[in-house]
Amino acid sequence: MRLIRFNVDESHEALWGEVEGERVFVMTSPRGSRTGDSFPMASARLLAPATPSKIICVGRNYFGHIREMGNDKEPLPEEPGLFLKGPNSVAGPFSEIPYPHFTNEFHYEGELAVVIGKKILPGTVRPIENVLGYTAGIDLTARDRQRGDLQWTRAKSADAFCPLGPWIETGIDPDRTVVRTFVNGVQRQEGRTEDMIFPVSVILEYISAFMTLEEGDVVLTGTPEGVGEIFPGDRVEVTVDGLGAPLVMYVSGEGA
Amino acid sequence: MRLIRFNVDESHEALWGEVEGERVFVMTSPRGSRTGDSFPMASARLLAPATPSKIICVGRNYFGHIREMGNDKEPLPEEPGLFLKGPNSVAGPFSEIPYPHFTNEFHYEGELAVVIGKKILPGTVRPIENVLGYTAGIDLTARDRQRGDLQWTRAKSADAFCPLGPWIETGIDPDRTVVRTFVNGVQRQEGRTEDMIFPVSVILEYISAFMTLEEGDVVLTGTPEGVGEIFPGDRVEVTVDGLGAPLVMYVSGEGA
Repeated sequence: MRLIRFNVDESHEALWGEVEGERVFVMTSPRGSRTGDSFPMASARLLAPATPSKIICVGRNYFGHIREMGNDKEPLPEEPGLFLKGPNSVAGPFSEIPYPHFTNEFHYEGELAVVIGKKILPGTVRPIENVLGYTAGIDLTARDRQRGDLQWTRAKSADAFCPLGPWIETGIDPDRTVVRTFVNGVQRQEGRTEDMIFPVSVILEYISAFMTLEEGDVVLTGTPEGVGEIFPGDRVEVTVDGLGAPLVMYVSGEGA
Repeated sequence: MRLIRFNVDESHEALWGEVEGERVFVMTSPRGSRTGDSFPMASARLLAPATPSKIICVGRNYFGHIREMGNDKEPLPEEPGLFLKGPNSVAGPFSEIPYPHFTNEFHYEGELAVVIGKKILPGTVRPIENVLGYTAGIDLTARDRQRGDLQWTRAKSADAFCPLGPWIETGIDPDRTVVRTFVNGVQRQEGRTEDMIFPVSVILEYISAFMTLEEGDVVLTGTPEGVGEIFPGDRVEVTVDGLGAPLVMYVSGEGA
């Protein structure tokens, strides 16, 4: 099932809908029922397919990325290393994101994003059963600030530092998909999720042991090898096999 | 003005109200008008006086605390060092907070908390004018996990790791107040906010340069010297001069 969050020309109200062919059928909520209204897909303006209360991210989940960051002399993580992005960081598909004024080293990190469908309280058995579905995410990062700041707050959670989309696909197997990032059409990252150090089921068990996950919360599952800089004018595309369309973003502005 | 968020016996609906003497006058919103309803204060059950989309915390803002953590060989921070706590970490006044299963070193950090009253977009001039008021906060910390984990997410943002309250006082001068923490009645921390490395006005300017602050968001301004361990059965009290009553929490559970 393909779920979109969208609005239409005549209204700025955000709606949820299920896509069937060229039409979108409005739903009461992502897990709700159809209201009876529908629109042509062509009239739907896509919004970020989640309104998270928080975004929990896994920092080192592919060995290739650990190596490229120079962290492969340390032992492999025994538990997922987490950090937070705030709701202010969410951006929709096709966003133009200004080159941030506080960095000289702006990086993409393409990732598989998990959208929570139903509250997960600590102690919930098999939390993965409360997942709504999957989408693509970009963990935008001010790499120089990540190195220099006390924690990764400014480096990872500035406004619009988390593009998500273009929609949610409920049928993806998170252990058997492939994430790829393209910059200006050239492939820069390719990660098979079966190579994750911590699969999605384990990440969710780890997080939910101490943190309640709300409906709409998002988990970014880590980026594979191949991160790199982006500049004003660049187009970044992240694909997830089975999602059916890429998440696209553009870097705007004058640059640093 | 003293603003509380509360509910009353006959309803679980959270309300906002202004306290006058022994009565609370219900308000449409923290900055709104009175609805005409009122209750005796004795019937009001106090809730956390904010529903933040994010909590932004300053890590090293008093020299005494920098020294006690062994970070005084590094140069003093030139900019506020920030980290995030998620909305899941909010707890109300008088909460019983279970000793976390994942730590053996559970610490209190008493702090002055800033509650945002009106959205602050990047570029807003004098963001401090959009502050609603001030309350007390406790930045609960799993100190061992803070040292061991990739980032401070589990150490700082587990469920209920951010007690707030008991209410908001709009008349406090954030540069001229004193924060004190008591454990089982014994004073353990005392910080004069004029000794902050970064005053509240500067913290808000720094954050809002890259991060939109929403109405209800909370900024924790850093903890003074004197942090330490707490154990099941302990009572922690944080006072802020001018607030009029302490924030109280209890540690429950068997301990580690």
